[in-house]
Amino acid sequence: KGMAQARSAIELRCQCIETHSKFIHPKFIQNVNLTPSGPHCKNVEVIATLKDGREVCLDPTAPWVKLIIKAILDKSDTNNKTAS
Amino acid sequence: KGMAQARSAIELRCQCIETHSKFIHPKFIQNVNLTPSGPHCKNVEVIATLKDGREVCLDPTAPWVKLIIKAILDKSDTNNKTAS
Repeated sequence: KGMAQARSAIELRCQCIETHSKFIHPKFIQNVNLTPSGPHCKNVEVIATLKDGREVCLDPTAPWVKLIIKAILDKSDTNNKTAS
Repeated sequence: KGMAQARSAIELRCQCIETHSKFIHPKFIQNVNLTPSGPHCKNVEVIATLKDGREVCLDPTAPWVKLIIKAILDKSDTNNKTAS
């Protein structure tokens, strides 16, 4: 549910018809793509590419989605501390 | 500076050699891609695709990068309020 449509380099319309509401553990997430709202689509769109290659639309207003994105960014801080 | 290398669907190595340190205004950003660190790359990678199609690596620990990502997500809340 919440599958993203095929994507050209710069998408000219909304890519998500619906969003996947259930929690997805970060260990299954390969990357997360954030597209701000704009002329092409009035919705902010968050599309996670899973490690099995599937693309899933997430709800940008869902707390767990914001937490996952924050966790990804915060990990860069801890990486820096251990690396330096 | 900080250009991202060409990307296959699921990248098997680090995509960013260096990061673009100067502030980029959100209005120039088409989307932002976050890749958590993992076996393929020990760095968290943030790649912004600009409206002119260029891809630029951003520093995930830079406050302005975190602010831009937060602003994109927060905009979804305001969109929801105005839409509903």
